[in-house]
Amino acid sequence: MSFTPWHTDKWFTSPWNFAPEATKEFNFAKKIKFHDVTLRDGEQQAGLVFTRDQKIALADKMAELGMHRIEAGMPAVSAQDREAIVEIAKRYQGPNDPEIFAFARCMRGDVLKAVDCGVKGIIVEIPSSDHMLKYAYKWDAKKAIDLAIDATLCAKENGLYTVFFCIDGSRTDLDDFTTMITSVAEQGHMDALALVDTMGGLAPHACNYMVKKIKSVIDKPLEVHFHDDFGLGAANTIMALSAGAEVAHTSITGIGERAGNTPYEDVALSLLTMYNIDTGIKFEKMNELSELMRKLSGHTIPSNRGIVGPTLAQIESGIVADWFVNAKDVAPLELSPYLYPLVGHKDAEVVIGKMSGIPTVNIYLDQLGMSCDSKDQKMEIVMKIKEKALAEGRLLTLGEFEDIAHSVLG
Amino acid sequence: MSFTPWHTDKWFTSPWNFAPEATKEFNFAKKIKFHDVTLRDGEQQAGLVFTRDQKIALADKMAELGMHRIEAGMPAVSAQDREAIVEIAKRYQGPNDPEIFAFARCMRGDVLKAVDCGVKGIIVEIPSSDHMLKYAYKWDAKKAIDLAIDATLCAKENGLYTVFFCIDGSRTDLDDFTTMITSVAEQGHMDALALVDTMGGLAPHACNYMVKKIKSVIDKPLEVHFHDDFGLGAANTIMALSAGAEVAHTSITGIGERAGNTPYEDVALSLLTMYNIDTGIKFEKMNELSELMRKLSGHTIPSNRGIVGPTLAQIESGIVADWFVNAKDVAPLELSPYLYPLVGHKDAEVVIGKMSGIPTVNIYLDQLGMSCDSKDQKMEIVMKIKEKALAEGRLLTLGEFEDIAHSVLG
Repeated sequence: MSFTPWHTDKWFTSPWNFAPEATKEFNFAKKIKFHDVTLRDGEQQAGLVFTRDQKIALADKMAELGMHRIEAGMPAVSAQDREAIVEIAKRYQGPNDPEIFAFARCMRGDVLKAVDCGVKGIIVEIPSSDHMLKYAYKWDAKKAIDLAIDATLCAKENGLYTVFFCIDGSRTDLDDFTTMITSVAEQGHMDALALVDTMGGLAPHACNYMVKKIKSVIDKPLEVHFHDDFGLGAANTIMALSAGAEVAHTSITGIGERAGNTPYEDVALSLLTMYNIDTGIKFEKMNELSELMRKLSGHTIPSNRGIVGPTLAQIESGIVADWFVNAKDVAPLELSPYLYPLVGHKDAEVVIGKMSGIPTVNIYLDQLGMSCDSKDQKMEIVMKIKEKALAEGRLLTLGEFEDIAHSVLG
Repeated sequence: MSFTPWHTDKWFTSPWNFAPEATKEFNFAKKIKFHDVTLRDGEQQAGLVFTRDQKIALADKMAELGMHRIEAGMPAVSAQDREAIVEIAKRYQGPNDPEIFAFARCMRGDVLKAVDCGVKGIIVEIPSSDHMLKYAYKWDAKKAIDLAIDATLCAKENGLYTVFFCIDGSRTDLDDFTTMITSVAEQGHMDALALVDTMGGLAPHACNYMVKKIKSVIDKPLEVHFHDDFGLGAANTIMALSAGAEVAHTSITGIGERAGNTPYEDVALSLLTMYNIDTGIKFEKMNELSELMRKLSGHTIPSNRGIVGPTLAQIESGIVADWFVNAKDVAPLELSPYLYPLVGHKDAEVVIGKMSGIPTVNIYLDQLGMSCDSKDQKMEIVMKIKEKALAEGRLLTLGEFEDIAHSVLG
């Protein structure tokens, strides 16, 4: 049998993903990197705070997972932020370590603070859209370009890998954007250009074209930094990568300014299972990293959120419990698109609730060493489970199931 | 000035969305409908329970919002479910009301139960992939096709609008799928065909092609029913609609089996602001509907989730607070991609926390009627805010700000 990248022993997505008509325009870079913004843009989420030690703990866990780059913070924010960046940069200097970046406004002072932190790279930001310059900054375009040239030169003089980052790039007139980026590339400096959708308003149909078009304007590696206001961050990032962007700016489980950044989990696991692209992330650490972030920040997620939701692997509905009984040992990928241990969860399990049917009763009678040959009695147990789950508005415990079973079977 | 669908008085997404190269293959249907699955697939989320009265309350709120269709439940699940469907179907019979659907397995008994509920339409489901038939159901394909023919004929005989729904459609061999759907269309009956990504494993690149290809195989209206295991449900649904699918199966804020269904909010607001397609939804009810669903179910979301997150409109970071001061009255769309009242939130507001800077101090001194001309004193206030926010790990209250301001200014 030929290799089927959509169906391995660990995942089973869809053959449609590999149809030649779906893949014909792919132009993925050979090496795709994740640039994690959790410690900077992530922390800009309103109400979310990480201490120095928490940032170090998150960076350590990201290093374990194999995150390619970590934007460790903006030194200008506070002394604590600065200390966190210094410590993280000190820990990760090796060739296989995450590359540590800092974030700076286009101001020499900000850039020099980053240099002092000992980081390898820097993101330097400037607004690029005429309306944001006019209304939010009260600057003209020349001021922005001059500041950007000066700051990027300063970064270069000090040996930093420099990513030029245009705030509101996706809402910038193409001519203005071209003037800005070519001026900085020619008179200032950039090692790479970040395409930034500050407001999250890019449509999936537009991302591919935007990357292609900007590649024709400037010969620099492209990075993409997308926000999630419309729940499209992951798909948009994938579309941009498919057109040749090389670095995805993402955060752990999507925390970030306003509605958050692109969640790296969704992008990385989609690339692996739908595009046959392994970015080198240690997937089995994914759940643990998200848990740590949520524990430290108090950030809430849906209990069944994809990839990292704590109850994702629970099966309640009777139809699916029936699949579980039939398939779990011989074809577990009939129960989920990937095996949950791939991302660090336990295996799928059947829980007891309002949607339960006879398959669930069979599973738990068996587990308790009880037997019952009467379909009527099993249906009576099912009805009592439904009644209690509905009354309590929750799942039942094994003890509660046992009580119901005894009440029916004697 | 010409009409710019990406920039109105209520939203500002991106001109890239309307570039001819991005839109050239669009084939959107004239009328796009949302088919809400909250009361059926939504409730299949493990641990989530709605009572009869809660289901009716959600249906009433959806009707207010202008939801096009409501899948009110699966009558076979329980007497309570049946009663909820009966009541919802009784309430919504008018030409401008939501169309009420029920869900059924391909069994005459299930279909007749739906008929008894007085619904207008029915979703009839059968597994279509050879592997799911073999491992999860232990059936052969002939059994599935025979059951589907029989059940869809029964639905037709009883006057129901019949949507044929192939479980695991996206992982079904195209020849097998073609045999299944053409057999049912010719020997049984379908008014529309649902393309179902049961496992959420479709890539955004594949959706467009899948819809086009299936349209060439069968001449029926297509509906799409996608899951969110990889966070791609909304984008995938948009891609499929752009290729001509007419109905999107979605749920309120994405609740549903396993990792949930496609959230209708993300799709509807994206269509409006990025594709110039108004589906007729009353957007100003969106936040209220999500709040009701979460209150009734206990479902948690990120506090800053896009569109419906309770703290989405809070601005903490100093950079953005500066934009707020400059732009809120003259150009509020520099602060967010759409004005939050569009979806039923209050306007954006600046909160006080670790990321605050001088703009925030200015805003709140002003609000308290206090004045300060010393930049040093303002910086001292900023530092004390940061220190306290970091120590407490949260935002500060206005009272706490006032205490700090008095301690610095005397």
